[in-house]
Amino acid sequence: MTPLPKAVVEALQSVLGEGPIPLHEPRFHGNEQRYVQDCIESTFVSSVGAYVDRFERALAEYTGARRAVAVVNGTAALQVALRLAGVRAGDEVIAPALTFVATANAVHYLGATPHFADSSEATLGLDPDALRDWLEHTAERTADGIRNRHTGRPLRAVVPMHTFGHPCDLDGLMAVAHDYRLTLVEDAAESLGSRYHGRHTGTFGLLGALSFNGNKIITTGGGGAILTNDERLADHAKHLTTTAKQPHRWEYVHDEIGYNFRMPNLNAALGCAQLEQLPDFLAAKRQLADRYQEAFSGVEGAHLIREPEGTKSNYWFQTLLLDEGEAEQRDRVLEATNEAGLMTRPAWALMHQLVPYRDCPRAPLPVAESLARRVINLPSSAGLV
Amino acid sequence: MTPLPKAVVEALQSVLGEGPIPLHEPRFHGNEQRYVQDCIESTFVSSVGAYVDRFERALAEYTGARRAVAVVNGTAALQVALRLAGVRAGDEVIAPALTFVATANAVHYLGATPHFADSSEATLGLDPDALRDWLEHTAERTADGIRNRHTGRPLRAVVPMHTFGHPCDLDGLMAVAHDYRLTLVEDAAESLGSRYHGRHTGTFGLLGALSFNGNKIITTGGGGAILTNDERLADHAKHLTTTAKQPHRWEYVHDEIGYNFRMPNLNAALGCAQLEQLPDFLAAKRQLADRYQEAFSGVEGAHLIREPEGTKSNYWFQTLLLDEGEAEQRDRVLEATNEAGLMTRPAWALMHQLVPYRDCPRAPLPVAESLARRVINLPSSAGLV
Ligand SMILES: Cc1ncc(COP(=O)(O)O)c(C=O)c1O
Ligand SMILES: Cc1ncc(COP(=O)(O)O)c(C=O)c1O
Repeated sequence: MTPLPKAVVEALQSVLGEGPIPLHEPRFHGNEQRYVQDCIESTFVSSVGAYVDRFERALAEYTGARRAVAVVNGTAALQVALRLAGVRAGDEVIAPALTFVATANAVHYLGATPHFADSSEATLGLDPDALRDWLEHTAERTADGIRNRHTGRPLRAVVPMHTFGHPCDLDGLMAVAHDYRLTLVEDAAESLGSRYHGRHTGTFGLLGALSFNGNKIITTGGGGAILTNDERLADHAKHLTTTAKQPHRWEYVHDEIGYNFRMPNLNAALGCAQLEQLPDFLAAKRQLADRYQEAFSGVEGAHLIREPEGTKSNYWFQTLLLDEGEAEQRDRVLEATNEAGLMTRPAWALMHQLVPYRDCPRAPLPVAESLARRVINLPSSAGLV
Repeated sequence: MTPLPKAVVEALQSVLGEGPIPLHEPRFHGNEQRYVQDCIESTFVSSVGAYVDRFERALAEYTGARRAVAVVNGTAALQVALRLAGVRAGDEVIAPALTFVATANAVHYLGATPHFADSSEATLGLDPDALRDWLEHTAERTADGIRNRHTGRPLRAVVPMHTFGHPCDLDGLMAVAHDYRLTLVEDAAESLGSRYHGRHTGTFGLLGALSFNGNKIITTGGGGAILTNDERLADHAKHLTTTAKQPHRWEYVHDEIGYNFRMPNLNAALGCAQLEQLPDFLAAKRQLADRYQEAFSGVEGAHLIREPEGTKSNYWFQTLLLDEGEAEQRDRVLEATNEAGLMTRPAWALMHQLVPYRDCPRAPLPVAESLARRVINLPSSAGLV
């Protein structure tokens, strides 16, 4: 039998040809140059401008959220979403251990502590059953909500993340959040275009956060957005992300501590052009997933991750999952593919394994730990098909 | 005698003609379109790219700082500069009461408390003599530095700000900072191009922060930079502002809590083109100051603010200062000018007058309070001459 590293390289080459092939590359074949040029000509490149408004409207329309508020990046979107969800210094927020560090950082920036929970192999996202079991041990009811009986801190919110674009079990998580009075805020940074039972990810929680970083399905250079169906929260998000300045003809009065989290109009111009092409990117990524699936059908010891049942994934990052028995081959597969110029990478280091978060409270994390040993992301650009 | 509001409108019209004239408008008559187009063609619009490196080198060269680290905006630059200066949760940081709210916010984001001090009428910036008097009453020495004897909190740093581009008394402030073991961090958000005894503002403190917001002398849409002469701090600034990820071929390990504060390459491309034109903008603004000075020479009750002795100001914001006896006319002058389509505005509300900062420690603030009643910023775009 062909050794796994070699088999993976061959399967990849059968889809991609020879390298070098980056992990993820943006694609600017639409109106990018035109809109950006127009933006510079208008002189409104900065904090106000027509493209910001247009991008926000287009995002709301596309996702079905009542409102979208464009901000400087996905991390900022998540920080403000959590603040608006009532997270305060001294609180705890449930987050997956298997995520990009920004999820935990956004909690930390508010003076709160992330509390890590396990993932499900079926979705790669927070596992509602495991979370419920854990909260049964850990949470205790108080007059104003739930607290962690071990640390005494309020448990305020839960932040599921839609890993690599695959929607997590939102019905299950909403039920747990409801039963334990946790506010649900979705980290939808990776899942623009992904739907759960037909509804767009990021619109199930009280608020959701998107990212338009350079490696995401669409990019604004750097950028993010807050989604919400609550007009009042959207207005407040706008206020907080624009330094909380009160409207006045000339006075500069700030009525609370806000942020300079505006998305510049220049970046929104790029975003408007990118969003027009999102349906094409989604179709290309789905096609790439099908090709990989076929190419890897003959490879033993690993399989392609497909969208969870009842969901439509954006297939942002194509993902190979090694069998439990092959986990120790992971680094050899990474070596072989990267040496062949086919860029791959493993999952992030789990949050509780990072020095700055190792002392945070956490549930048992057997599935996250297993997934982290077995995940390999494959070249995923929409331009590859 | 002509009433002051009418006299101001007439003086402005003699320089500017009829309105509408905005307070400050950027100007894109250089390589902006070319560089931005090239940036999009390269597909590197996001967190890595040649324009970021080039912009950082050009900033370092222009300012004479050993290193410049480009970031997402001036607020982020200041927050990271303060963190690198050793500001920790529970500390106090001396800042002017007369500043834009971002100075105080950056302190607050670190969990520290701003402690407001008075300004000097000669520079519009922190007054070193008043600060020394105040610290004599307020500061007490402890084993590891100075603390506020009233609150018990460590006094860690001082953040002078170069108001409207005019350099403050850096010699005086450095002496106070030295005597009281306060680390000096400059808020040079408004003073790109401004020099104190020939040396660029933002390079006197351990670190300095620049802003390239849309209303600044040059703009990147949104952006900022950290200046420092300390290579180690610069490397650390880069690390912290790029999520503190350890360099590795594929692993995602973050060794401390960092930020997504990268300046996208798209914005840096704009910045490179803008910086090439900075000498022209400086010359135009200086010429505009001269014209205003002449136009207002016949107006009684107000005078144009000129650069402090020993400094070269960028004249970012042109500023009219009403005499003490005319302060109550300020709002009528603002009304008359704005109604004539000549956009003007007063100074910011002082920090201790904002609800979120009203309980912070503060020195007596007679000069800041007087200035805030008398300052009127005039149309200041480089394109006006
Ligand atoms: C899961 C997750 N959360 C948050 C973010 C933060 O987004 P950004 O990089 O735009 O700050 C990202 C993307 O980087 C992400 O993948
Ligand atoms: C004095 C001062 N500090 C800080 C900032 C913050 O810069 P930015 O708007 O780029 O965040 C500004 C400009 O807005 C400023 O004027």
